[in-house]
Amino acid sequence: MRIGMVGLGRMGSNMVRRLLRHGHDCLVYDISERAVKDLVSQGARGAASLSDLVAGLAPPRAVWLMLPAALTGDTVAELLDLLEPGDTIIDGGNSYYRDDVDRAETAAARGVDYVDCGTSGGVWGLERGYCLMIGGPEAAVTRLTPIFAALAPGAAAAGRTPGRSGEPSPAEQGWLHCGPPGAGHFVKMVHNGIEYALMGAYAEGLNVIRNAGIGVADHVAADAETAPLRDPRYYAYDGIDLADVAEVWRRGSVIGSWLLDLTAQALLADPSLEQFSGQVSDSGEGRWTSIAAIEEGVPAPLLTSALYSRFASRGSDVFADKIQSAQRKEFGGHAERPVKGE
Amino acid sequence: MRIGMVGLGRMGSNMVRRLLRHGHDCLVYDISERAVKDLVSQGARGAASLSDLVAGLAPPRAVWLMLPAALTGDTVAELLDLLEPGDTIIDGGNSYYRDDVDRAETAAARGVDYVDCGTSGGVWGLERGYCLMIGGPEAAVTRLTPIFAALAPGAAAAGRTPGRSGEPSPAEQGWLHCGPPGAGHFVKMVHNGIEYALMGAYAEGLNVIRNAGIGVADHVAADAETAPLRDPRYYAYDGIDLADVAEVWRRGSVIGSWLLDLTAQALLADPSLEQFSGQVSDSGEGRWTSIAAIEEGVPAPLLTSALYSRFASRGSDVFADKIQSAQRKEFGGHAERPVKGE
Amino acid sequence: MRIGMVGLGRMGSNMVRRLLRHGHDCLVYDISERAVKDLVSQGARGAASLSDLVAGLAPPRAVWLMLPAALTGDTVAELLDLLEPGDTIIDGGNSYYRDDVDRAETAAARGVDYVDCGTSGGVWGLERGYCLMIGGPEAAVTRLTPIFAALAPGAAAAGRTPGRSGEPSPAEQGWLHCGPPGAGHFVKMVHNGIEYALMGAYAEGLNVIRNAGIGVADHVAADAETAPLRDPRYYAYDGIDLADVAEVWRRGSVIGSWLLDLTAQALLADPSLEQFSGQVSDSGEGRWTSIAAIEEGVPAPLLTSALYSRFASRGSDVFADKIQSAQRKEFGGHAERPVKGE
Amino acid sequence: MRIGMVGLGRMGSNMVRRLLRHGHDCLVYDISERAVKDLVSQGARGAASLSDLVAGLAPPRAVWLMLPAALTGDTVAELLDLLEPGDTIIDGGNSYYRDDVDRAETAAARGVDYVDCGTSGGVWGLERGYCLMIGGPEAAVTRLTPIFAALAPGAAAAGRTPGRSGEPSPAEQGWLHCGPPGAGHFVKMVHNGIEYALMGAYAEGLNVIRNAGIGVADHVAADAETAPLRDPRYYAYDGIDLADVAEVWRRGSVIGSWLLDLTAQALLADPSLEQFSGQVSDSGEGRWTSIAAIEEGVPAPLLTSALYSRFASRGSDVFADKIQSAQRKEFGGHAERPVKGE
Repeated sequence: MRIGMVGLGRMGSNMVRRLLRHGHDCLVYDISERAVKDLVSQGARGAASLSDLVAGLAPPRAVWLMLPAALTGDTVAELLDLLEPGDTIIDGGNSYYRDDVDRAETAAARGVDYVDCGTSGGVWGLERGYCLMIGGPEAAVTRLTPIFAALAPGAAAAGRTPGRSGEPSPAEQGWLHCGPPGAGHFVKMVHNGIEYALMGAYAEGLNVIRNAGIGVADHVAADAETAPLRDPRYYAYDGIDLADVAEVWRRGSVIGSWLLDLTAQALLADPSLEQFSGQVSDSGEGRWTSIAAIEEGVPAPLLTSALYSRFASRGSDVFADKIQSAQRKEFGGHAERPVKGE
Repeated sequence: MRIGMVGLGRMGSNMVRRLLRHGHDCLVYDISERAVKDLVSQGARGAASLSDLVAGLAPPRAVWLMLPAALTGDTVAELLDLLEPGDTIIDGGNSYYRDDVDRAETAAARGVDYVDCGTSGGVWGLERGYCLMIGGPEAAVTRLTPIFAALAPGAAAAGRTPGRSGEPSPAEQGWLHCGPPGAGHFVKMVHNGIEYALMGAYAEGLNVIRNAGIGVADHVAADAETAPLRDPRYYAYDGIDLADVAEVWRRGSVIGSWLLDLTAQALLADPSLEQFSGQVSDSGEGRWTSIAAIEEGVPAPLLTSALYSRFASRGSDVFADKIQSAQRKEFGGHAERPVKGE
Repeated sequence: MRIGMVGLGRMGSNMVRRLLRHGHDCLVYDISERAVKDLVSQGARGAASLSDLVAGLAPPRAVWLMLPAALTGDTVAELLDLLEPGDTIIDGGNSYYRDDVDRAETAAARGVDYVDCGTSGGVWGLERGYCLMIGGPEAAVTRLTPIFAALAPGAAAAGRTPGRSGEPSPAEQGWLHCGPPGAGHFVKMVHNGIEYALMGAYAEGLNVIRNAGIGVADHVAADAETAPLRDPRYYAYDGIDLADVAEVWRRGSVIGSWLLDLTAQALLADPSLEQFSGQVSDSGEGRWTSIAAIEEGVPAPLLTSALYSRFASRGSDVFADKIQSAQRKEFGGHAERPVKGE
Repeated sequence: MRIGMVGLGRMGSNMVRRLLRHGHDCLVYDISERAVKDLVSQGARGAASLSDLVAGLAPPRAVWLMLPAALTGDTVAELLDLLEPGDTIIDGGNSYYRDDVDRAETAAARGVDYVDCGTSGGVWGLERGYCLMIGGPEAAVTRLTPIFAALAPGAAAAGRTPGRSGEPSPAEQGWLHCGPPGAGHFVKMVHNGIEYALMGAYAEGLNVIRNAGIGVADHVAADAETAPLRDPRYYAYDGIDLADVAEVWRRGSVIGSWLLDLTAQALLADPSLEQFSGQVSDSGEGRWTSIAAIEEGVPAPLLTSALYSRFASRGSDVFADKIQSAQRKEFGGHAERPVKGE
């Protein structure tokens, strides 16, 4: 079917490529003319502006936005002035689901359907397909089925779950209509919240293994302020090969996963990870997941711990640490160890 | 090669079956005669006692123990009286790695090699193979290579990690010599610590989705002591299908894993999980992982949170909760909500 | 000075009593005529309606609201229609500081000063005085100094901090102008976030002591699914008297505090805390503190853990626990222990 | 009464001074002759060796050890060769309670009573008195009552708990016989575990306030990898005076405590805490408390979070952070921010 794509960054352009491969007719627009040209050379049709794009589509139109979250709102507003009742906007970016709720209301008032589509897959999506979590009106989602089916990985991407039978459902193909507007980005948000915790779990565990040699003489800190190791003989595992550990866990173990595959790959390429500083960014969804947990009154200690570890990795805990050093000095006369940079 | 297997529970007997399939000569013993007979009917040779088993093996012997942790120590002691220098004991159970360190010392004094082998794979291992994490003397591990290779899943069980080349290493086949005695169970211990956190991460995230409909009128608690929901309109996602969510995440997403596969399966079979009480057991490794993190001075907030959530699921937090209710009553005159059972 | 007080619940009426004792002229209003009468009998003047109250005050008026958070917004709106430029509204309730920011803008557009005042002290405030954390325009706060000084505990309520000299500052008297509108409730919010964690810290520690006798024979669970206690001899402290422990900590120790005083009191009165169910409520500030930490990118693992423990105490973790039981059954064939109620 | 004191560091010598003030006869020994002389000049009697000290006491002797934990074991062994049945050893240092259990057994076999005494009070104890948590045989503890009473702060150090009446109990005087050997250090251990969490709670909360101005223009990070602040207008509280905040909380609020007093003092003296690096030490008890919680199967998320934050403050989390940066690069092509030192 015909679809307009706005926003041709890495994600957007790869999604267009995947749609083209599946025979869809893509009309594309980006503020970068070069990005447009690049896709035109691969079979897409190009638009010179938003209005040009809308003009190039026939009603009922479908316009997919793949933009940085900060730009989506304005573009939706602009589009709503160009579209007609019956048309559909799909926001496939990383928007906060609350914006979807608000925008869908505005769009509905104009007769335009608003579909939010949380998209996982990153740089691997072009080949593997994208996992799509979708919110919005039933009819609009149904109308877009061919697009979702093309972008999704398809049923063969994973073994069938015992108990499933018949024609594979959309979920089994890698796309799911989760609920009303915002439900797609809500599920994608939680997906990312889980992702942070999975990443952190492997990281913590591997760090425990990396430090399993602290009982070996040279590693023991001679520091009156720090608890001495009680049984150094039980911490004699100096130099366990972490790349091999990650590798062996990939086969037959309970903790195999795609993230573990990537971890094994990274540790093989750079065992000491010297190229990294350890300042871990976070991009919104992890925060929003914890906020949702708090507002729902549902505990999410792992998801939030993973988030807080990222915050701390960027130094925002240092002042709190200093307060504790100050308290220790006040009540116990404890001198602090030499300064680390804030 | 020839190997003796002691302990024919679910794990032990399945491992014998897998070894038989690979053409190994298995001499088996268990206090249950029936368990022995069952495997004899499948091609193993049976022994009537530990000494009978030792007598039936030629030096250098290899005796694999697959026993509940509580029985392993006594059996090792008994075996050490029967074995000769050059023989090997392999503990494939869920022992604490510290016991390996101690037992390996005792065994070494008798000239016997002690190999610890953390074994992951559970009920699925017979078909999938077992992920083996091994500690002990180099020579003994080398001698046992055919056994490890047979039990492990093999290189084909996962795609090759980019950057790996040549003959697949043992880690790529699913078994790894991690280091000196105890190193195998240490790595297995951390593996389970990670497992708890992975499980908890999916569980927390799905619980956040399950409660995404609290803004819908009927769900809003009318309770002066509890914070009212500020924006109910953003929590209108009542009844998102969790089995479908787990299913869609299995394809193309960053959080795909074997645990997710199992989660999808469980939610499909029993969407409300009514057959479960929510009292989650823990079997030692998770505790030991957190203790290791503490003794190493390495933070493991996710791994420990996962453990603590299991403790709390069994009610051991209730007294701490009561203290807080009592404090609230003292300083604020807050009455508590109706009683739940301890 | 003259002040109007709206909202004569436990907090509001006690504050009026304290103001009367300090010689202030209080004009009071509540929807409960009885509450008004009660204070009139103690020296206040009564008003029959909001407009009656406004009429009874001379410009520049000061009207203090001490209302449930849910009612404050509407009352502010109503008041703004009655007040004149130069008047002041003080919100002394438990409002979300964001509402202060918004309401202060609206009020400023009418020429009315908006002051937010986080108030700690609970049922003890009448005698001890109230700790006041204040936000709003400098001039309005200055104008209200006599009121704040009367409500606050005064400098004598705590020993002087070494390094402080001269006339005691407002902070030393127990009230503080923290910053622009909302700053008072922001600081009060964090105060409550800290309070939750202090409460939880004592509760967890006392629970660890309460369970220090698990090594004593009768307490050891015979459960194959749960890790056996490795060294029961180190857990022989059955029946340590928790009321006495809390009591002894009150003298000379580093952890003495008012909350500990209350804890000692509660444990003395009811050592097993049988009257409590352990369902701990939370009233907003703890949630908002964690949300602020998340939005600031600042880790607050203790504050959020304390909050999550309260959530879990009310059963909202049970579904997540069930998922983990289900996962365990899938991969390991682990049966669960008998059902507890959800 | 007469008592021997071994170990005249800051704690030991101050305790002797307090005992002398209360009229007790102190025979003191330390490897530092100067420390002995110093106390002799203040009224103590000096001993030149352990055996000299034992010789200078009449049976039943009481020898109090106030030594670094690493030296206590050897000194106890040496003393046991010098003492007679009926004598008592008191360990007032920071020993692991498990060592008490073991040493008490050895001592009991020689007819010597072993008393463990957890001691809180630090540099303030000389004037304020020491909070004493005691384990060991009833008779020995009773015999030592005059010593404990002299060291403890006394009943007047805190207001009487409502419900207490009659002669103040030992707990009300600041000393408590908690149970059998090790119980004293167990309760002291948990006391310190709680202390870490109380410190961390104030630190986290104050850090949230310190960052409440991130919405002010200059503070907003321009970083595509980090979530932008959604509502900067709600984070306009730049420069709230933390020393004043801590000060105001000291009066009338629920979170007043001795630790808060010290925090107020530290923030007044050095508002930005520039003299501190933020590397927070830990000295054993905090670790052991978490280990006890884990072995008991009792959740202690706050106590352990406080401990882990201290670990992280010393950089032991950096490798785990690097793993997450590496994972992000693998699956999303995310570049990391510039390097911070490990």
